[in-house]
Amino acid sequence: MRFTTYLNNGVARLAVVDGDSLIDLNSADQRIPSDLRVALKAGVELQTRAREVVASATPRIKLSSVTFAPLVPEPGKTVCLGLNYFDHAKEGGRDKPEYPWFFFRGASSLIAHGDAGVAPLVSSKFDYEAELAVVIGQKVPRHTKEADALQYVFGYSCFNDMSVRDYQKRTPQWTIGKNFDATGGFGPVLVTADELPPGAVGLKIQGRLNGEVMQDANTSDMIFSVAETIALLADVLTLEPGDVIVMGTPAGVGQARTPPVWMKDGDTFEVEIERIGTLSNPIASEHK
Amino acid sequence: MRFTTYLNNGVARLAVVDGDSLIDLNSADQRIPSDLRVALKAGVELQTRAREVVASATPRIKLSSVTFAPLVPEPGKTVCLGLNYFDHAKEGGRDKPEYPWFFFRGASSLIAHGDAGVAPLVSSKFDYEAELAVVIGQKVPRHTKEADALQYVFGYSCFNDMSVRDYQKRTPQWTIGKNFDATGGFGPVLVTADELPPGAVGLKIQGRLNGEVMQDANTSDMIFSVAETIALLADVLTLEPGDVIVMGTPAGVGQARTPPVWMKDGDTFEVEIERIGTLSNPIASEHK
Repeated sequence: MRFTTYLNNGVARLAVVDGDSLIDLNSADQRIPSDLRVALKAGVELQTRAREVVASATPRIKLSSVTFAPLVPEPGKTVCLGLNYFDHAKEGGRDKPEYPWFFFRGASSLIAHGDAGVAPLVSSKFDYEAELAVVIGQKVPRHTKEADALQYVFGYSCFNDMSVRDYQKRTPQWTIGKNFDATGGFGPVLVTADELPPGAVGLKIQGRLNGEVMQDANTSDMIFSVAETIALLADVLTLEPGDVIVMGTPAGVGQARTPPVWMKDGDTFEVEIERIGTLSNPIASEHK
Repeated sequence: MRFTTYLNNGVARLAVVDGDSLIDLNSADQRIPSDLRVALKAGVELQTRAREVVASATPRIKLSSVTFAPLVPEPGKTVCLGLNYFDHAKEGGRDKPEYPWFFFRGASSLIAHGDAGVAPLVSSKFDYEAELAVVIGQKVPRHTKEADALQYVFGYSCFNDMSVRDYQKRTPQWTIGKNFDATGGFGPVLVTADELPPGAVGLKIQGRLNGEVMQDANTSDMIFSVAETIALLADVLTLEPGDVIVMGTPAGVGQARTPPVWMKDGDTFEVEIERIGTLSNPIASEHK
């Protein structure tokens, strides 16, 4: 099944996607929380409930007419991986990592499909990163093994981990360059894990700037798989329902090009992942 | 005024401290949210409300009898600074930084005063870091200047930024070593900004392991002040009510000692900051 989060009178609400339309889950059944994280935390059987809603006569809203919200508007944690495709590590002059380069994003950086990614006032080095996002569905027990890890995944979506490269490199800690307001594109649709290959492997992933293909890879090229990443994290911390893991980007980012390519006002960047969908964000300048 | 968060039948609730007792704010006035972040986000005039509650006949609970919760149980963001005391940067072989080494902590790492800090199964290198915590009271407008920054601070508290040193150094990104479950001691008391020097400067800060002084410094030794830190962050992101900034630790950490000192089961670590209070956490091993 496919889920999305959209704005209804300015409030983010969870919906199930049915063809080219969505159905607001809370409108259909008020026992279903309107926030994906809250619904998952409450243990709501979202797929069962959503199936009932799809079978009902609840009014549909055309996807083409809605304004989206970030898929999980306020995740407990958004854990990102750096350098998780070898070709991208290499284009940055890095070796293949032996452990993921983890950093966190705050919810204040997240934007929806269709929202503008904001090229900041204080930098001109605004880059894109097409990535696979994983939404955790159930609490992952500490020290879960790789072989058991995927059962806790609710589904997969698209992410654009927009990066302010000079801030990312002001110190060895990348966090600040990954947390500018309005730089984390997330959505528009989540595809539940049962509809995709285990760990979402074997899916084409593409990043396009103004229609031109800048990144073109396959999720099978990830160095650390979704399952291994969850297992590594479970040695450290508790992954909770509605937490998000952003799996790193393949080669082709703007900073590695000659000359470098930076996103600017009026651009559009799209992240397309096979069988999941396309996330599109126009770019606007904070200058304006 | 002094605020705290304690557990009432397992639920974290905001309270005002009155002498050696607390008063549950929501019990006194049901319009006051029980969560500090929620109350600040809602724009509740907490100091005014708390003063009324203190003047009322609402029942007191002895502080000595309560179980605490993390001061802000679920901050939107917890932004931490590395290397913010020159003597600590120096003991780690680092130069004085020209920009703060920012990283984020997730709420799943936070514990209360009195809770056990958990020395993890996968590492023996469990270290302490006594720090000043800043709780943001109002949304900080983007590009706020240093001179205007302190008006957005609600108050100050104690933090123990417990660090798993080998994980912190597995890659250049420190985040993972700072996000083990039950490693972020936070509380027990917040002192509102009006009761302290601007930016909480000039306060003695001490870290004690089993009563022995390991860190002994003054908040005036911070390289980046609270005001400058808020201004630097405001160039990047929106600080929101209930967000937390953890201001870095002075010299004397366990890893910089010869031989290194690691925390282990049965230890106790205290963070004391003059005019704010003492945060104490026993250490327990995940092995048990």
